[in-house]
Amino acid sequence: MTGPTTYFDPARLGELPPDTADLVRRRIAALGPAYRLFYREPLEFVRGNAAHLTTADGVDYLDAYNNVPSVGHAHPRVVAAIAEQAAKLNTHTRYLDAATVAYAEDLLGTFPPHLANVMFTCTGSEANDLALKIAKIATGATGVIVTRNAYHGVTTEVAAVSPSLVGPAELAPWARATASPIGAGDLVADVRAAIDDLAAAGVKPAALLVDTVLASDGVHPDLPGLAEAVALVRAAGGVFIADEVQPGFGRLGSHLWGFAQLGIDPDLVTLGKPMGNGHPIAAVVARPELTAAFAARSRYFNTFGGNPVAIAAAQATLDVLRDEGLPTHAHRVGTRLREGIAALGGPVAAVRGAGLFLGVDLVGAEGTPDEAFTLDVVDAMRRRHVLLATAGETNTTLKIRPPLPFDDADADRLLDALAQSFAELT
Amino acid sequence: MTGPTTYFDPARLGELPPDTADLVRRRIAALGPAYRLFYREPLEFVRGNAAHLTTADGVDYLDAYNNVPSVGHAHPRVVAAIAEQAAKLNTHTRYLDAATVAYAEDLLGTFPPHLANVMFTCTGSEANDLALKIAKIATGATGVIVTRNAYHGVTTEVAAVSPSLVGPAELAPWARATASPIGAGDLVADVRAAIDDLAAAGVKPAALLVDTVLASDGVHPDLPGLAEAVALVRAAGGVFIADEVQPGFGRLGSHLWGFAQLGIDPDLVTLGKPMGNGHPIAAVVARPELTAAFAARSRYFNTFGGNPVAIAAAQATLDVLRDEGLPTHAHRVGTRLREGIAALGGPVAAVRGAGLFLGVDLVGAEGTPDEAFTLDVVDAMRRRHVLLATAGETNTTLKIRPPLPFDDADADRLLDALAQSFAELT
Repeated sequence: MTGPTTYFDPARLGELPPDTADLVRRRIAALGPAYRLFYREPLEFVRGNAAHLTTADGVDYLDAYNNVPSVGHAHPRVVAAIAEQAAKLNTHTRYLDAATVAYAEDLLGTFPPHLANVMFTCTGSEANDLALKIAKIATGATGVIVTRNAYHGVTTEVAAVSPSLVGPAELAPWARATASPIGAGDLVADVRAAIDDLAAAGVKPAALLVDTVLASDGVHPDLPGLAEAVALVRAAGGVFIADEVQPGFGRLGSHLWGFAQLGIDPDLVTLGKPMGNGHPIAAVVARPELTAAFAARSRYFNTFGGNPVAIAAAQATLDVLRDEGLPTHAHRVGTRLREGIAALGGPVAAVRGAGLFLGVDLVGAEGTPDEAFTLDVVDAMRRRHVLLATAGETNTTLKIRPPLPFDDADADRLLDALAQSFAELT
Repeated sequence: MTGPTTYFDPARLGELPPDTADLVRRRIAALGPAYRLFYREPLEFVRGNAAHLTTADGVDYLDAYNNVPSVGHAHPRVVAAIAEQAAKLNTHTRYLDAATVAYAEDLLGTFPPHLANVMFTCTGSEANDLALKIAKIATGATGVIVTRNAYHGVTTEVAAVSPSLVGPAELAPWARATASPIGAGDLVADVRAAIDDLAAAGVKPAALLVDTVLASDGVHPDLPGLAEAVALVRAAGGVFIADEVQPGFGRLGSHLWGFAQLGIDPDLVTLGKPMGNGHPIAAVVARPELTAAFAARSRYFNTFGGNPVAIAAAQATLDVLRDEGLPTHAHRVGTRLREGIAALGGPVAAVRGAGLFLGVDLVGAEGTPDEAFTLDVVDAMRRRHVLLATAGETNTTLKIRPPLPFDDADADRLLDALAQSFAELT
């Protein structure tokens, strides 16, 4: 249960400026103690643009963290699409809507032809919940295999397959996580062992569910053995679900989807975060045989899922992504940033990534992974007005995944701030 | 697994106008077979206003079905709030946001003081999922008791406590539905039996979960015995969750919340559909002891849940509800409509309801409940350009729950169309 960055400690309320302390106090009173605020000193933004966020007193922050406003904070085309549609109509998918069908066709056109159906939800959690339901119904099995430090969402069903959220001990009895840290083990052997372990408990695998950039497992743009692991799961009767909630929609640069970069065709795909540039829309893309098996058991409806305003936001986001060539841009700037970070040396032990999704393994003074040092770097960057976070089971990997308009000047600014932070802390 | 109305039958595609048939065909190809379209002949709307929806060819429909756009379709204040905030910033709850805290305080001010925390999700399903999680963690128990034909949402967890969705045979092993149809049995005896039956299986009750207007159980604005049933559950260690996703936010007229009308203080409350007038926002309101127990086990985050644009939509919706006096209006027009329907006689066996949430039991030619007749009435109303639906286990109750600006002229139009439909069909 590591966090993705440093959090504000309510015991230090007295150290905040009085106005901030007052707002934090009211927030805790109203929202309760389960919510967290990023950073040792919390931030309040009032507007955003491209990869930049601005505080009430006009300070500009470089956003290298937020992957949800993927085509840029407050992108005018997405804002206009939302405003125009909201002013006309916002109902649901039990009436006909030509724009919904057109978007579904447009989106499906970016997938391999065998992935021919899309079903809309509001959140990535709901998408993974639905994908597991479809997989279980279609296979008649209940087992789910995930990676060792996976995160797939917050509903009860998907939290139970998210070891990074609930801890490995609280996985569902029908779930297994791979044994080795990603990048340090044999995925094929781990998946084989998971299938065997499920079998020993009388459970057949319904699905192998993998975030195709392994974000919470430390960011791994390749995953040796995945094709063989998928074949094992399919041979045991299960399907492969690619969780594209984080890698999808062009962030990885060379490919629109993480599974395409990995060279594996999934049976189900889940989409989320960047799909509507912050507007709540998510989806499951599926082989028609699977939706047919699901439909034989259940009709489908999600009140807000894919409503006309959500569809307008998603269509505008996809249009901007293409019209502004953001995947190509992400590839170019991401490569430059990756090379720049590697050249910094010092505590940088490894840089992985694709496009604008980077993982940077840091080591502390002893030359070994050091969580406290990594978190200090996050806070040192925040003091330099650059937002990033951490990833991985040991929380010793910097996670960099800015809005895609992040440009060369932004990359230079991040590199300067990182060099300064390293100098300050080493 | 009854539906809320008639659905389009894909086998009758050839009977539709060519353009409609083409769009429906493309829709089925892209969204797959699990989606349904309302009505034997589907409808496509292009704009809405107050309680009216308009088709592409300019035909006005009276909307007595859609409870989501509760302050009226495309209400200009809500639209403006969404557009203005989206143009500035849309991040998430891990940064400070003064408007989020102000809305949380405003919303909580409408609840009894012991319900002092609110946590935001995107959908009512997510809200019920989270409420069950909190209840289970706080009580250390797992049992959930629901009403006989309850519907609480679509995630795997809440579908498993929704007999109207999955059928009584597929409830979770830790769930029990009350034995008698609502209004025709003894709720206290049924809840006692459910507690005993869970105990026999070694399960203690974590929660009694009740939609406080019993929408899918046929619309019941009162529920004799509820106070005693809640006391039984609490004595057995469980909590009471009021599902306000359908009744909440003033629809019932005299009270903002269904639990207030029933005179029962809940431990947890779930909110959804009308909260943002169609924008995806939902919430759990809770006793602080419960959120504290939850927070001791888990931090909480929902990517889109309560983001700044969702909060802007919710604040504008709550402001409009108050500024336009919509609960009082709903009480007045709803009473008039209820009396008008009762006066129609004929197939009307009973009219129940509060404010603008009505259930009308119909009987067929034999003087007994008749699903086919009730569905024919729904379609006869649709041909007269009035949208409504059905409810209840036997699907013989008309469900009327329009956007709250539904006015006297709208009520007269509905009454005329209903009289004509009855005349046509009897």
